[in-house]
Amino acid sequence: MMGRAGVTAAEGFVASGVACGLKASGRKDLAIVAAKQTCAAAGLFTGNSAAAAPVLLCRRHLGRGVARVVVVNSGCANCATGARGMADAEETARLAARLAGCAPEEVLPCSTGVIGTRLDMKKLSAGVEGAWGKLSVEGGADAAEAIMTTDTVPKIAVRHFEANGATFTVGGMAKGSGMIRPGLATMIAVVTTDAGVHSAVLREALQEAAAVSFNRLTIDGCESTNDSLLALASGEAGPLSGKGDDLFLDALSQVCTELAKKMAADGEGARRLVVVRVTGAPDAATAGCAARAVAESALVKCAVYGGDPNWGRIVAAAGSAVSLDLSRARVTMGGVTLLACGEPVIGVREQAARALAAGTVEIELDMGCGDGQAEFFTCDLTEDYVKINAHYHT
Amino acid sequence: MMGRAGVTAAEGFVASGVACGLKASGRKDLAIVAAKQTCAAAGLFTGNSAAAAPVLLCRRHLGRGVARVVVVNSGCANCATGARGMADAEETARLAARLAGCAPEEVLPCSTGVIGTRLDMKKLSAGVEGAWGKLSVEGGADAAEAIMTTDTVPKIAVRHFEANGATFTVGGMAKGSGMIRPGLATMIAVVTTDAGVHSAVLREALQEAAAVSFNRLTIDGCESTNDSLLALASGEAGPLSGKGDDLFLDALSQVCTELAKKMAADGEGARRLVVVRVTGAPDAATAGCAARAVAESALVKCAVYGGDPNWGRIVAAAGSAVSLDLSRARVTMGGVTLLACGEPVIGVREQAARALAAGTVEIELDMGCGDGQAEFFTCDLTEDYVKINAHYHT
Repeated sequence: MMGRAGVTAAEGFVASGVACGLKASGRKDLAIVAAKQTCAAAGLFTGNSAAAAPVLLCRRHLGRGVARVVVVNSGCANCATGARGMADAEETARLAARLAGCAPEEVLPCSTGVIGTRLDMKKLSAGVEGAWGKLSVEGGADAAEAIMTTDTVPKIAVRHFEANGATFTVGGMAKGSGMIRPGLATMIAVVTTDAGVHSAVLREALQEAAAVSFNRLTIDGCESTNDSLLALASGEAGPLSGKGDDLFLDALSQVCTELAKKMAADGEGARRLVVVRVTGAPDAATAGCAARAVAESALVKCAVYGGDPNWGRIVAAAGSAVSLDLSRARVTMGGVTLLACGEPVIGVREQAARALAAGTVEIELDMGCGDGQAEFFTCDLTEDYVKINAHYHT
Repeated sequence: MMGRAGVTAAEGFVASGVACGLKASGRKDLAIVAAKQTCAAAGLFTGNSAAAAPVLLCRRHLGRGVARVVVVNSGCANCATGARGMADAEETARLAARLAGCAPEEVLPCSTGVIGTRLDMKKLSAGVEGAWGKLSVEGGADAAEAIMTTDTVPKIAVRHFEANGATFTVGGMAKGSGMIRPGLATMIAVVTTDAGVHSAVLREALQEAAAVSFNRLTIDGCESTNDSLLALASGEAGPLSGKGDDLFLDALSQVCTELAKKMAADGEGARRLVVVRVTGAPDAATAGCAARAVAESALVKCAVYGGDPNWGRIVAAAGSAVSLDLSRARVTMGGVTLLACGEPVIGVREQAARALAAGTVEIELDMGCGDGQAEFFTCDLTEDYVKINAHYHT
């Protein structure tokens, strides 16, 4: 892939991705995203109390709301590695800062991979130096590739919008593809923009965007120790104000939602993207709770994989999470209504089974008791998820 | 199997199990447990708001705390079947009541199998009549077989105790083996005793026993619409009092725990029973919360299946549910310590991998910050769980 993609689509950023040997496979495993100047930055991180060293360090470094460089390594999570793990993360920041000519606090290191293994700092240092030498405005695609773990495809998204007489860009990259659930539902995502927004505004926008994207995503209900969503705003396309703020939030939400859907579609072992939509709930929170329960149900996900329109598992999952009045419930899979007013619809099983063969499967549950609605993104559960997670240890 | 087993081990009960065609396979699918006289009874049921018709009916029938007959069919859950499904459950109760010469309110019908399909009442009626004709004190084994769905082995347990100058017996049967998590963590379990206990005492004892057994069990984190735990006390061995009550609770807890462990070991697709023990928590509730998170983690369960001592997934799972101070944490798998004081233990990976080959795998997490502890029972996650649930629809 060539051209300006993902994190280098917006003005003011360069990126690169190289292989430095952290992955036994020899694939790319180190990405750098660098702003030409120190810029506004915000981050959201895992709520896991067993957070990795780089997560703890990023939280500290983002205290001032600015950053210059993001360094992401795959192949090692640098989590549960004790005091030496934190020293390794700090050393990574110092190394990149020296190359960038900035303070170490302006570097945000992220790690993803197996928990409990220390970083090979010799390889990592060589990787940071190698990647620094390759930074370019065309490096977004390489960076997206270098942050992959069990992902099968790199994930990038870009949106443009016009405001205040200028064209602005928001671009991002993300990786999955297991140990993913809301709060924060992604392992690593980096979003850049050339819009001039203050770090406090950026942080607020990031929270709003995450609420409808990464926090609506579940692969396996497992919360990683390394989940990080970072945003950097260079301001190179000019400042934003008034309606521009709303357009920026829209673009950011769209980029995050596209990345979240791509992560769901590429969930470990997945064959299909599953979009769960709950409508007719008493309120949005209840709808979200029901949608999440359906999206997290191993049984619903197995049924989708098997092409089995087993709507019973959908009401069972929703009913375990919220108060569901079966007599008002309506369930639709792939556009085929299977349950209406609490009564099974007869004679549509074959039609529904055919609809489940599509690459994207929409599941809709209308609770029939209000206007609340919410969407959740997930994937089907296949034998390959088990294979990947039973035998993966690199 | 011959002899008095499971629900017919205690005095005062007969049982049987027959095939009436509800299962396409032709296997036994209808069980009856009958007390010789109307006796004290208690039940605990799923918290799922999409509860099946027989669950709603059992709750109503148990209002007086007495029962005479339990009818369990497998092959059909009679859930989400609308008003006609409830009429079918009521008809089942009337039919059994006629045969037993008791009030329909003294019959407790239970159904387990696929959600959303109506009972074939012609087959079911013939089954109830056929099973009634075969009731015997040696029928406990047949009954345990007839309630199986994806279980590979029937599950029974029996305990005896001496109190108040007499010998008392508590016996039970249970079925799994998917859609199982705490609250209530079993699809169907029936326990009988010849101890003379009042229904209120029986109910309280059942709650205490479930708290340390079925509510400590998770196969896939999915809560069924049909979970029911029923207990009947004939009193034929005499009344209980004083210390006898404690001995009864002990025996009941042991029977329930043995059944719960057997359900975990026979979880859908399972190769191994996994016992998760959390110690050193601030309190028992925190320990239970952490243990449940580890037991519900698809990634931990895949690692056990793959023989991979991936303790990082254990701290990630616990840390996502409770506040875990990694610097104090200690993780042991199969007796091998892998993390101590937040630092990985080097050179024990092979030894730990060997320990994971055992039929029962013990995972211990010492949080290092108190005296709270709790156990949870689960199984490993294999490709077969996916196969069973992607292609099972009978």
